[in-house]
Amino acid sequence: MSALDPMRFYSQLARALSPYVAGEQPQDGGWIKLNTNESPYPPSPRVAEAIRRAASEYAADLRLYPDPDADALRGALAERHGLRRENVFISNGSDESLAFMFAAFFAGKDCVTPAVGYSFYPTYALLFGARLRLIPMGGGMSVDVMALLDADAPVIIANPNAPTTIALSREVILAMRDTLAARSQLLAVDEAYAPFYEECAVADECGRCGNLLVIRTFSKAHALAGMRVGYALGHPDLIDGLNRVRDSFNSYPVDRIAQTAALASANDRDSLRQTVAAINAVKETTRQALLSLGFECAASRTNFLFARKPGVDGRALFDGLRARRVLARRFDKPGIEDYLRITIGTAEQMDRVILAIKDILRELKP
Amino acid sequence: MSALDPMRFYSQLARALSPYVAGEQPQDGGWIKLNTNESPYPPSPRVAEAIRRAASEYAADLRLYPDPDADALRGALAERHGLRRENVFISNGSDESLAFMFAAFFAGKDCVTPAVGYSFYPTYALLFGARLRLIPMGGGMSVDVMALLDADAPVIIANPNAPTTIALSREVILAMRDTLAARSQLLAVDEAYAPFYEECAVADECGRCGNLLVIRTFSKAHALAGMRVGYALGHPDLIDGLNRVRDSFNSYPVDRIAQTAALASANDRDSLRQTVAAINAVKETTRQALLSLGFECAASRTNFLFARKPGVDGRALFDGLRARRVLARRFDKPGIEDYLRITIGTAEQMDRVILAIKDILRELKP
Repeated sequence: MSALDPMRFYSQLARALSPYVAGEQPQDGGWIKLNTNESPYPPSPRVAEAIRRAASEYAADLRLYPDPDADALRGALAERHGLRRENVFISNGSDESLAFMFAAFFAGKDCVTPAVGYSFYPTYALLFGARLRLIPMGGGMSVDVMALLDADAPVIIANPNAPTTIALSREVILAMRDTLAARSQLLAVDEAYAPFYEECAVADECGRCGNLLVIRTFSKAHALAGMRVGYALGHPDLIDGLNRVRDSFNSYPVDRIAQTAALASANDRDSLRQTVAAINAVKETTRQALLSLGFECAASRTNFLFARKPGVDGRALFDGLRARRVLARRFDKPGIEDYLRITIGTAEQMDRVILAIKDILRELKP
Repeated sequence: MSALDPMRFYSQLARALSPYVAGEQPQDGGWIKLNTNESPYPPSPRVAEAIRRAASEYAADLRLYPDPDADALRGALAERHGLRRENVFISNGSDESLAFMFAAFFAGKDCVTPAVGYSFYPTYALLFGARLRLIPMGGGMSVDVMALLDADAPVIIANPNAPTTIALSREVILAMRDTLAARSQLLAVDEAYAPFYEECAVADECGRCGNLLVIRTFSKAHALAGMRVGYALGHPDLIDGLNRVRDSFNSYPVDRIAQTAALASANDRDSLRQTVAAINAVKETTRQALLSLGFECAASRTNFLFARKPGVDGRALFDGLRARRVLARRFDKPGIEDYLRITIGTAEQMDRVILAIKDILRELKP
């Protein structure tokens, strides 16, 4: 075997893919893990309770396929966003909603996205044959709205944006939607981080217009990355498009326990509010500490910071943190290679990170 | 909105799809549900126990993404099949393994499958642009092995086959593999039902040859349809191909609890053996009852029967059962439209089904 081409059975598609590289998930302990924007706090206690109940009272039901449409969860999310059940699509993480979206609406078509954004978008485009163009950023790493609209194509955007942490205002997003609607073009807004700054969110507008698709996740503010549940909101025709792709891929993508867990979390608004408030508070303290160390760091609308220190090599900083058992994220990409993306941990963890950074800066000093 | 084309935002791909229609999942009680080949028995008690433990001792970990590679589960399955961890790929149901397989190995290529088989295969082929040809069946609804090989293309086959319930022998499958290997073509064997007749299985051969991919599921014999876990077995190069597609689609397709549940089930071989023995016993009793009522019904190697009564309309039989709160499955497809696919339930359920069928036959008599 070994002398042969290991890819000899691969399709042209598989050869052409450029897989997304997710942040490391070290299986040994002792790390301050700030590399995949997970919550430092546990999910709502109602989640564990609901899972235990499902595994006690309803354990025999695990032999049965789950509700393919996850109607109970759709109902709860519709209520939360002031929409109807027909406006909601449930998926295995928001990644699956995004993948289905590329297949349903962008395969074989032109579409545009800001050059600095969720780096999974170009990967989906390759998988489903969308012609995704990256539009250069404006000043201060902001999204260049005019340039996006000038491209005369459907727009995919993360708002707040990652890894830049910056949000466009709700008014700007709605104006984009209107411009695109007049041209019969879609606007897809990935609101994975919107719970940290709901002021910018447009999820509630999905019932009102036909060209807006919003994608959300339980992985960040709901602290349920381990359960893999995401959702999309939009006009029923758009939801039907996602259903067509889902039913051509996997009839039941979200298992019984994941539906149960997400439903319990969706119904505990207090827990969500507390998590978001705690993370936002620690975030501001951490940012001030970084600024006082000479870092550039925009005010973040997400659960992470994006920072660089002029004159300091990003890789050296990343490696220095790693040597101190702190995992951050760094993108080897022109223009942002000196930035670190640092998830907000607990106050205590962030104190230790700031101490580690001080230590590294001392070490790096010539 | 309503006057406009509801598909105006759809890609050509989405318009061309022909989604798979899964069996109904009625959310109200009182049905004898024999339409999606679920187990009538609950999963191993160790599953519920493991889930409860995960939701008690490890509830805080739900905030963290799962192990993307599901290494613990891969290790257990490697051991079970006499393979190594690098031979195993874990997915969200076996449907996801099948979908990734089409993308990784068959996109843009010719491939063949028996005309009567899992009807999701042509759907995957459309989604990922594979040119899948359906090869007519041989006599008695058997798979025409010679015709498949004569097509000079990679082969996708379910063994035991669905909905026909018939298995090719292990020797025939291995001979197919050798013929295809000599031509550098893949053989993919969907062994979803092999636990009901392990004599035909070739899963253990996956370590030895580079052109064999076997797909398995926890949904049937493991009685875990509600948790959505499947897997593929093959040469590490083939597993890498599946990983490339997975990492272009969803970095973490199997959640923490699903991994935990499947691992507990994989480690309880006694429970699996008991479930299979019980289902196989009820299956034979049910088959004899159908034969004595004048049905044609092949000896089944799966957890369901495929039966018709000459001179009796399949739809009338299906509707008669439905009216008596028994859900069977029927395919509106030339050649098999008078057959019912009936999942094996408990002995008591099958007694009631036979009584219901007798009742319907009396009613239908002219």
